[in-house]
Amino acid sequence: MSEHHHQNPIAEPQVILELIRYDRSAYAKYTDLSVDDLLLQINPGEVNWINLDGLNNQTIIEKLQAHFQLHALLIDDVLNDQRPKAEEYDEYLFFTLKMLYRIDESGIDYEQISFVLGRDYLISFQEKEGDLFDGFRERIRLDQGKVRKKQADYLLYRLTDIIIDNYYNVLDKIGEEIESIEDDIQANPANRSFNRIQKIKKELIYLRRTVYPLRDALNKIIKGESEFINDENIRYYADIYDHVIHLQDSLDIYKDLTSGLLDLHINTLNTKLNEVMKVLAVISTIFMPLTFIVGVYGMNFENLPELEWQYGYYGTWGVMLLIVGGMVAYFKRKKWF
Amino acid sequence: MSEHHHQNPIAEPQVILELIRYDRSAYAKYTDLSVDDLLLQINPGEVNWINLDGLNNQTIIEKLQAHFQLHALLIDDVLNDQRPKAEEYDEYLFFTLKMLYRIDESGIDYEQISFVLGRDYLISFQEKEGDLFDGFRERIRLDQGKVRKKQADYLLYRLTDIIIDNYYNVLDKIGEEIESIEDDIQANPANRSFNRIQKIKKELIYLRRTVYPLRDALNKIIKGESEFINDENIRYYADIYDHVIHLQDSLDIYKDLTSGLLDLHINTLNTKLNEVMKVLAVISTIFMPLTFIVGVYGMNFENLPELEWQYGYYGTWGVMLLIVGGMVAYFKRKKWF
Amino acid sequence: MSEHHHQNPIAEPQVILELIRYDRSAYAKYTDLSVDDLLLQINPGEVNWINLDGLNNQTIIEKLQAHFQLHALLIDDVLNDQRPKAEEYDEYLFFTLKMLYRIDESGIDYEQISFVLGRDYLISFQEKEGDLFDGFRERIRLDQGKVRKKQADYLLYRLTDIIIDNYYNVLDKIGEEIESIEDDIQANPANRSFNRIQKIKKELIYLRRTVYPLRDALNKIIKGESEFINDENIRYYADIYDHVIHLQDSLDIYKDLTSGLLDLHINTLNTKLNEVMKVLAVISTIFMPLTFIVGVYGMNFENLPELEWQYGYYGTWGVMLLIVGGMVAYFKRKKWF
Amino acid sequence: MSEHHHQNPIAEPQVILELIRYDRSAYAKYTDLSVDDLLLQINPGEVNWINLDGLNNQTIIEKLQAHFQLHALLIDDVLNDQRPKAEEYDEYLFFTLKMLYRIDESGIDYEQISFVLGRDYLISFQEKEGDLFDGFRERIRLDQGKVRKKQADYLLYRLTDIIIDNYYNVLDKIGEEIESIEDDIQANPANRSFNRIQKIKKELIYLRRTVYPLRDALNKIIKGESEFINDENIRYYADIYDHVIHLQDSLDIYKDLTSGLLDLHINTLNTKLNEVMKVLAVISTIFMPLTFIVGVYGMNFENLPELEWQYGYYGTWGVMLLIVGGMVAYFKRKKWF
Amino acid sequence: MSEHHHQNPIAEPQVILELIRYDRSAYAKYTDLSVDDLLLQINPGEVNWINLDGLNNQTIIEKLQAHFQLHALLIDDVLNDQRPKAEEYDEYLFFTLKMLYRIDESGIDYEQISFVLGRDYLISFQEKEGDLFDGFRERIRLDQGKVRKKQADYLLYRLTDIIIDNYYNVLDKIGEEIESIEDDIQANPANRSFNRIQKIKKELIYLRRTVYPLRDALNKIIKGESEFINDENIRYYADIYDHVIHLQDSLDIYKDLTSGLLDLHINTLNTKLNEVMKVLAVISTIFMPLTFIVGVYGMNFENLPELEWQYGYYGTWGVMLLIVGGMVAYFKRKKWF
Repeated sequence: MSEHHHQNPIAEPQVILELIRYDRSAYAKYTDLSVDDLLLQINPGEVNWINLDGLNNQTIIEKLQAHFQLHALLIDDVLNDQRPKAEEYDEYLFFTLKMLYRIDESGIDYEQISFVLGRDYLISFQEKEGDLFDGFRERIRLDQGKVRKKQADYLLYRLTDIIIDNYYNVLDKIGEEIESIEDDIQANPANRSFNRIQKIKKELIYLRRTVYPLRDALNKIIKGESEFINDENIRYYADIYDHVIHLQDSLDIYKDLTSGLLDLHINTLNTKLNEVMKVLAVISTIFMPLTFIVGVYGMNFENLPELEWQYGYYGTWGVMLLIVGGMVAYFKRKKWF
Repeated sequence: MSEHHHQNPIAEPQVILELIRYDRSAYAKYTDLSVDDLLLQINPGEVNWINLDGLNNQTIIEKLQAHFQLHALLIDDVLNDQRPKAEEYDEYLFFTLKMLYRIDESGIDYEQISFVLGRDYLISFQEKEGDLFDGFRERIRLDQGKVRKKQADYLLYRLTDIIIDNYYNVLDKIGEEIESIEDDIQANPANRSFNRIQKIKKELIYLRRTVYPLRDALNKIIKGESEFINDENIRYYADIYDHVIHLQDSLDIYKDLTSGLLDLHINTLNTKLNEVMKVLAVISTIFMPLTFIVGVYGMNFENLPELEWQYGYYGTWGVMLLIVGGMVAYFKRKKWF
Repeated sequence: MSEHHHQNPIAEPQVILELIRYDRSAYAKYTDLSVDDLLLQINPGEVNWINLDGLNNQTIIEKLQAHFQLHALLIDDVLNDQRPKAEEYDEYLFFTLKMLYRIDESGIDYEQISFVLGRDYLISFQEKEGDLFDGFRERIRLDQGKVRKKQADYLLYRLTDIIIDNYYNVLDKIGEEIESIEDDIQANPANRSFNRIQKIKKELIYLRRTVYPLRDALNKIIKGESEFINDENIRYYADIYDHVIHLQDSLDIYKDLTSGLLDLHINTLNTKLNEVMKVLAVISTIFMPLTFIVGVYGMNFENLPELEWQYGYYGTWGVMLLIVGGMVAYFKRKKWF
Repeated sequence: MSEHHHQNPIAEPQVILELIRYDRSAYAKYTDLSVDDLLLQINPGEVNWINLDGLNNQTIIEKLQAHFQLHALLIDDVLNDQRPKAEEYDEYLFFTLKMLYRIDESGIDYEQISFVLGRDYLISFQEKEGDLFDGFRERIRLDQGKVRKKQADYLLYRLTDIIIDNYYNVLDKIGEEIESIEDDIQANPANRSFNRIQKIKKELIYLRRTVYPLRDALNKIIKGESEFINDENIRYYADIYDHVIHLQDSLDIYKDLTSGLLDLHINTLNTKLNEVMKVLAVISTIFMPLTFIVGVYGMNFENLPELEWQYGYYGTWGVMLLIVGGMVAYFKRKKWF
Repeated sequence: MSEHHHQNPIAEPQVILELIRYDRSAYAKYTDLSVDDLLLQINPGEVNWINLDGLNNQTIIEKLQAHFQLHALLIDDVLNDQRPKAEEYDEYLFFTLKMLYRIDESGIDYEQISFVLGRDYLISFQEKEGDLFDGFRERIRLDQGKVRKKQADYLLYRLTDIIIDNYYNVLDKIGEEIESIEDDIQANPANRSFNRIQKIKKELIYLRRTVYPLRDALNKIIKGESEFINDENIRYYADIYDHVIHLQDSLDIYKDLTSGLLDLHINTLNTKLNEVMKVLAVISTIFMPLTFIVGVYGMNFENLPELEWQYGYYGTWGVMLLIVGGMVAYFKRKKWF
């Protein structure tokens, strides 16, 4: 429906379609099939995980849509930037969230991943090639852990858990950056630090948008008594829910810490200004009276008796030293040095 | 009822009344009829979309009111500036919101649009000629998409969706403006930037007022189990609801970003002040002692022995260069350059 | 009960007691009767509106209390400053709120008005003579609008609507003041503007206290299914409820705008400080070196060769002009002018 | 239970135990009895008000605990600093809050008072001798008002009402102090004002902690349908509830006003800084060029033609006056005076 | 499950496993047994408190897990940093929170402690050796208080109460630190104070994260009607709940006080800057005109009549003294000293 917004630019033509099919005893993986052939390999008795990397091949998506009777609005949500959310349809559960990557200094990379969980299948839609699941695919193949003994809803749990766990890595890097900025402010000129603070703040703003709606989405799954999630697995989703709240707490803490950094930065700036002004005031207060005095005896009056005194010059120095001493004592008492 | 407030100034006399009537097989459009003739064309078996551009012709409004038994308070709401809201009456559903236009630099243009959805008709009241629906009218005529196969409630969904979609265009322009201001602050004098920030802030304040109540209104439609919205179409309204929450998120992000801009602006100002003060302090600290020294030897004491030394002048220069060197070293150590 | 607080000072002895009695066919108004005579005129079959201006005549209040069996706490609430609220008693509905007047520059004037709505009567208690209802009294007399065809609950709606409508006038004046301050800040010295901002902020603080509780009070009436409000009139109270939320929105917007004004004021102050400091730094940076140079050649060393050079004086001017030129170029590059 | 925290220091050994016993016809007061004798005087048919001033006599408290079967946690709550709260036990209702005194400039004095309301008795525990109830005790003795006609629950209402009413006195003093500070800031040096603002802010922080939980506590009483509060008296507690909300509103307003004071203080400081800097800049801008000029003609060049001109000196003055005039005009235009 | 985050670094190999078993008549304590032997000592008829200090011995944990059928997610929660929470399983209640220690100036020390409460046992998992329970263990042994007469749910209450009580000690130290900083700011140079404020702010941020979720956790226990908590003991948990709310209040107050400290610090900084600028302005305003005047009479014009006047020099001093007097009077009036 509706000509939507925020279409994610998808330039690379590479689209990868993959099916992993397993149960307790069997395992199969299909990667280079056409979408029609791949759909033929789906076996209702087993868990069928269909993964699509790249969303720009309309034919594939339309065939998936037709085969699984996916609602037009769901496809819309898969193709467009979406808040994380869970939605129950008659035939499947739809769940979309963001995968995070922290590639380098230039910031966090977001990728939307959407899941459609049916009774015996799970479809995952990713925007780009490459994900966090390679190690886990290997665990399925080698039958490690419980995954081969469980249904598709447990598979969805494990994938979600892997995604959320990776959030912690990103947050840890932000935590380190915050500490590094703090050191930076105290050691170095201020302007660069300010830009780093602003950058962290922006990242936190976007992260919050990614994490907060997840709470509602997971709550919907836990409370919703969806028929696609077995009761015994609800506790696993509740565990992810706890992680998400933990992440929220961390984001709130980081937000507070970052605003503390801003205070620190401003305080450093102000303290420096105060210091500069003190130097200026001290110098002016000491030298202005002195310059005045030497100016007095630089006047050319014919009748200026001190000029003729034997020790006038030395007396002037004496007076000036007294003034300097007085000033220094005054500033000491005022704690200006 | 009640002599109301915030009457929108409606000066132009131009009022356009239009009826588009369709079902799966038939389509008709009436534009130049009088209100009485137009009402005769309404066909209960089909979808009847009556659109009124311009609200200053009291006769038309009264005849519509009489024909559809519209409540006096509803007419009041149509004619006056209103928060977006949905209200269920016995015979129809009332829904009012704002259409946005971003015409140019001078800001966002708001127009109130109100809908009355009955069982087989939809009335849309607009303040001014011209709207966002021309492309969609063409789609109805050509029988593109699902609209001809659906009832009036789907028509309302499509019109609302078009309006909300256009909000994204406005928000995107604001996002661009925020980025442009950020560049501006770092490159240019500050005062203009500040005014641009203030302007964005104001726009966001008004936008929030436009978007936030929409959430309640749509929630009322979704939860209200109104008899005028078919159950199968509730999901479409839920989709718009998601868009509105997405818009809210964006507004919140923009608000945070704008307040970040203000911090940036203030920081730039303070950094510049610090710089200026440093220049002042450095210049004063270097030249005040020097001026004092040359003042000393400008005194006219008869007994001022240094004046008679052979190399007194050159020695003075030496002392002064030493002082300058010391100062520069001091400032270097304090990281003032 | 309880010796209460915030007794409103009521000095003027003038108390006005008035009864307007009407139904579809009859209308009567009694103004100069004693309280006993007036109570005799009450006719249970018609709508009886008893209005009391001035609350310092204890006899009248006690007789009204006795006649209508008003609860002691209700009388307490009438006589003392109260948050707007609605309270359901067995025999009547109690509703109290504030009337606003914007008399002049010195601020907003508040008056508490309390209503007791019985089955066939409405009592209104006002603190002072004079209200907003004169035009409406005339409409009743002339049988304009629906009021003569309706019961006392509709009368209460109309009076409340008139009071709330007048809030918009007050808010509009505040909106104008905010715009006027904005112009003022950009044109004029700052201190006066600051005081105007503070004044607006205070007014908004008090207004919020007046408007916000109204929401709860009206909600109580709408949801409470009070037997004193006919179901068909609930929608009218819901309409006032919408107005109150609209007012809240406006107050929130004005609050944000006012805090924007404060930012603007502070920015203007800071920008001016920066400008002043720049002027100071430029002047110092240019003239301090020059003064030093002329000081050098004001020294009285016997052996100061430059003094004897033919073009020493002109050369000195040349050097000084070079310095000035260099400084000006430096400041230009730094964008200090 | 548990070795608790924030034990209030109770040094004075003075403990006062008192019983006031009354019904419609009888009244008796016992003050100098031992706890055992006093408990013998309790008469189940009448209202028995036991008041204990001073909580450091463990024997008395243990005997009361044993006689009325008070829960160990309740005694814990009585003896230790507690948030205001109401708690329903099987045999009684427990209610604790703070009494406020505003003794003098040094701040507000808090005293915890706890009530245990049984079917025919009320126990009040106070930390110190002296309370707000003396006038009310006299009213009971003289049978003024309704109290002698009512049960213990009405007695608790009256005592609570007296305590809450006294909050208004404290708040009024704070309101006066806020106004006085505002005058102070505009008239006087800033530092003292700042300390006064900080003090008010602290007091408001602690007051909020005292008032806000009261809302929940009273709500619990009103909604809880406790068997110890007669239905006909619920309305009285609802009235106190309204007072508490009114107090909350006032605290919020005072908080906003105090933060306005801080803005005012900061603005005054900044305005003064701006003024000082302007004076400095004006003086420097005028005298630096002049000092330079007179320095020029203080040079000792042998060939400095102007020095020999007849009117060189007067010409120099002329040039200097022109410069001063130009500067003054410049500053006028810039609105620096 | 899932390779988790924030694994607490556990380096020391020391693991202590302990069983305390008691009922009304019997008491036994086992400390140096292997996990298998210890599990054999568990007696279903008595209360069995198993305490494990140190979580790095996987064998012990696995055997406990197997014996008590602990859920894998529960073990996950025990081993990893967790928000305080309570969770009901079929066979036991899980409850985790933080123990606080305030060791010294360097900050607060957190240790996670987790409880598993079964029908006749309580397992406590601690990260490190040493806890707050030694005195209480002694009380159990000596049969002091009620603990020997109660079940395992009362034991859990007592341990939780001891932990929460210790929070008050930590908060009291923070309260003292806040007061000490306040004195510090008013007496001393500013920069150190700022760092202390920042440190307190950080500690409060982390404390909030520790205390706030406890409210939900305890609420879950109180409302959850868990079969592992006897109804008669719910009131004890409600008492802890009250303490936690009290702690929240204190944290909020400390937060407000700390932000007040920041205001105080900034104000001190600004006041000092103002003072410095005043000194500078006063010195400049007094000496610049004087230096100008003496410069005038240092000019070497041949025709400069004042120089030849008999009392020119003294007259100049007179003029200068007049100027100084005028300036001082001006600054006095402006209240600059």
